[in-house]
Amino acid sequence: MNHDVIISCAVTGDDTKVTKSPHCAVTPVEIAATAIAAAQAGAAIVHIHVREPETGAFSMETRHYREVVKRIRESKVDVIVNLTCGMGGYIVVGDHGLKDTPGPGSDFVSQDDTGNLWFVKQMIKEGLLSAPSLIQLCMGIPYGVPADVGHLLAMVNSLPENCNWGTFAISRMQMPWVAQAVLLGGNVRVGLEDNLYLSKGVYASNAQLVEKARTIIEAMGARVLTPAQAREKLQLR
Amino acid sequence: MNHDVIISCAVTGDDTKVTKSPHCAVTPVEIAATAIAAAQAGAAIVHIHVREPETGAFSMETRHYREVVKRIRESKVDVIVNLTCGMGGYIVVGDHGLKDTPGPGSDFVSQDDTGNLWFVKQMIKEGLLSAPSLIQLCMGIPYGVPADVGHLLAMVNSLPENCNWGTFAISRMQMPWVAQAVLLGGNVRVGLEDNLYLSKGVYASNAQLVEKARTIIEAMGARVLTPAQAREKLQLR
Amino acid sequence: MNHDVIISCAVTGDDTKVTKSPHCAVTPVEIAATAIAAAQAGAAIVHIHVREPETGAFSMETRHYREVVKRIRESKVDVIVNLTCGMGGYIVVGDHGLKDTPGPGSDFVSQDDTGNLWFVKQMIKEGLLSAPSLIQLCMGIPYGVPADVGHLLAMVNSLPENCNWGTFAISRMQMPWVAQAVLLGGNVRVGLEDNLYLSKGVYASNAQLVEKARTIIEAMGARVLTPAQAREKLQLR
Amino acid sequence: MNHDVIISCAVTGDDTKVTKSPHCAVTPVEIAATAIAAAQAGAAIVHIHVREPETGAFSMETRHYREVVKRIRESKVDVIVNLTCGMGGYIVVGDHGLKDTPGPGSDFVSQDDTGNLWFVKQMIKEGLLSAPSLIQLCMGIPYGVPADVGHLLAMVNSLPENCNWGTFAISRMQMPWVAQAVLLGGNVRVGLEDNLYLSKGVYASNAQLVEKARTIIEAMGARVLTPAQAREKLQLR
Repeated sequence: MNHDVIISCAVTGDDTKVTKSPHCAVTPVEIAATAIAAAQAGAAIVHIHVREPETGAFSMETRHYREVVKRIRESKVDVIVNLTCGMGGYIVVGDHGLKDTPGPGSDFVSQDDTGNLWFVKQMIKEGLLSAPSLIQLCMGIPYGVPADVGHLLAMVNSLPENCNWGTFAISRMQMPWVAQAVLLGGNVRVGLEDNLYLSKGVYASNAQLVEKARTIIEAMGARVLTPAQAREKLQLR
Repeated sequence: MNHDVIISCAVTGDDTKVTKSPHCAVTPVEIAATAIAAAQAGAAIVHIHVREPETGAFSMETRHYREVVKRIRESKVDVIVNLTCGMGGYIVVGDHGLKDTPGPGSDFVSQDDTGNLWFVKQMIKEGLLSAPSLIQLCMGIPYGVPADVGHLLAMVNSLPENCNWGTFAISRMQMPWVAQAVLLGGNVRVGLEDNLYLSKGVYASNAQLVEKARTIIEAMGARVLTPAQAREKLQLR
Repeated sequence: MNHDVIISCAVTGDDTKVTKSPHCAVTPVEIAATAIAAAQAGAAIVHIHVREPETGAFSMETRHYREVVKRIRESKVDVIVNLTCGMGGYIVVGDHGLKDTPGPGSDFVSQDDTGNLWFVKQMIKEGLLSAPSLIQLCMGIPYGVPADVGHLLAMVNSLPENCNWGTFAISRMQMPWVAQAVLLGGNVRVGLEDNLYLSKGVYASNAQLVEKARTIIEAMGARVLTPAQAREKLQLR
Repeated sequence: MNHDVIISCAVTGDDTKVTKSPHCAVTPVEIAATAIAAAQAGAAIVHIHVREPETGAFSMETRHYREVVKRIRESKVDVIVNLTCGMGGYIVVGDHGLKDTPGPGSDFVSQDDTGNLWFVKQMIKEGLLSAPSLIQLCMGIPYGVPADVGHLLAMVNSLPENCNWGTFAISRMQMPWVAQAVLLGGNVRVGLEDNLYLSKGVYASNAQLVEKARTIIEAMGARVLTPAQAREKLQLR
């Protein structure tokens, strides 16, 4: 069991969800604001995608990322900013925004299925990747690995030695999977990228999802790490 | 995952714990009171041991059981009363106390290790036991089955078809195990028989333990069954 | 445990292996011959890829498939012929070759990772696929699912109800995986498509690999099904 | 997977089996003879119980053990002799028989259920036992742990670090379990104490059971260790 849990919050996702929930952030201003709120609720890491401000469509534009990071840093709220690069590559943003990015510890790797875990281990073996800061096992995404305890257990038993890892599941399994991650020694992820609802028919904000995860973690007797404690655990910088 | 969770509260245990916590119930009056409080907090089942009122030593005296049951029924608080018979045999108390006991559904079987699960399945096969109301898997008790997810998964996969089951763990693993039980489709148990603490150094009352279990269950998106709903799920009476 | 085991033999694979082993079949004549030998050794199913006869390069040419099937049928050796269509679609060849193909039971689906298993279950759910004859779990292929018992167990527990299934692993794990498949209730696959060696440095023929699989299966107390028995178990035709 | 497999042969068991099979050894002469034959067939360890010579009833008499050991040593056939002490304590016999017994490495512990595994780990923790030579997981004995892959996997994942281990199952599961042990990295045990039959209705000798285990092990690509190699692997003497 993991007693020192890092909460990641994936604050926004693909465009189809934009019109559904009033909490979905679209513009860099909104994305930064929801990330700050998530951090204040207890998220040590915010996982950032950006969108086209007018349409909400998925975007990879550096200027949107730049604005999000700038606003987060200006708020003085401490949080580890994890920018996605769409698929595969992830970078950690240093305290000075994109100026010192990728920051040390840019080893986050997204896990889509057991094949990617093989790939990560191969990269470590070939010296292309030092022991990753955080391996994330994504479960429950249709046609990926099902959010099933047996599968997670098998994957956890296959992880590289001494790595930090997390796992998350989508929709209804998001919160139960917070508990499952902690029970097996991992870290957690919540956020509107993976689930829109607080309960049946009730939309959630990112802060509310983080609070609910915190409730579960603390009721189980574990503690939620601050960004500073998370940096130390993940050996960032 | 189990979305309709039955909370059992094991309100008091063996005598060595009596002198430790101020919340430990000793006399039938105290045991009944703590059981009632647990029921009001959300426990659908209370699991009852009794003690010698003067010494707190473990007792099997019918008159103590009788008094506990009488007081619970007089309170008009609805709860399923599950009396232990020390080892192996369990009986369910009907609404009229020991007069109509064992009540229908007296099929609770305590699981100490995988051997007992074999025994239960054998008894069902030989027609000595109809499909049990609730098979309870006890984990984390020294020299029994460790509170380990792999072991629980293996046991859950070996359960008889279509049975209700629950699992609990002791001490620090009590609350995490509430989450694990729900995740794998089972019911839960908390209470001072298995753990004395709310958090490090802070003693718990049974009601507080039930409340914490409820918090975890509801945060995971499941609901806690009332005694009436539990009777229906377990097909009692 | 599976006591009625179907051996599939995947007789040839991709072109890179052609120059390595003297047993690799390239021309339709050679492919048919090695398939017949595998059937005589105990394979109930032969899994057929074809090659360009001159170069040994991978081919999808119908005429090569046609010739292979014709020669197998002319030999009068009974075996279930399973032609691959490269990726995803598989067809069963009836007794009259490609004339009555796809034969009934053309439900073989290749499993590359847990995502495909999800896809199969979805297709069954949507009525696009009746309960498959044989779900094949491929393990140990780099970047797919590792040939790990925990992973296999999780996948086996996720299979559709009442399906037949098999699993195989490549290289050194081919023969151990024959035993693992049988232990968990599945069928087996061997053949030069997945492994070239009988032992360290010693090339194998398909017949030798089938014999070795048979040795393991029978030593474990199970029996190897004939093609006729396999058709019945898989409910073909 | 274990590529260097130690075969233990448990040559005789409790008295009820005596009248069933013509191969059951009763007198010290017979027990020694069957142990020697098992060793010649490939068993690196022979696991010895003794019986009352007239009745075949179970015995703990030192003089019977002494005679068995003397005869084995006089044959000059090398094998590790593992005498049982009924329950719990096991001793290794040195080359000079009971004169230098318990020999170094007398750390064999029999595993009846997960509780004993807990006990072993506790003894190691308290310094009462140095890292055991061989932890044996017994499965499939009624009311013990079922011979189920999930259970074995959970127990294997709970073993102390860097220990050697083996597992065996009884009756029909004896030979399949040889394969399962090897697949998960363990050593194997066969013999008439656990199973009387070579196949349905056909009684087995210990040598035949050892040969069959050897067949499975070698077909899987592993090798069977000699007693000398086994002593080195187990760090005896």
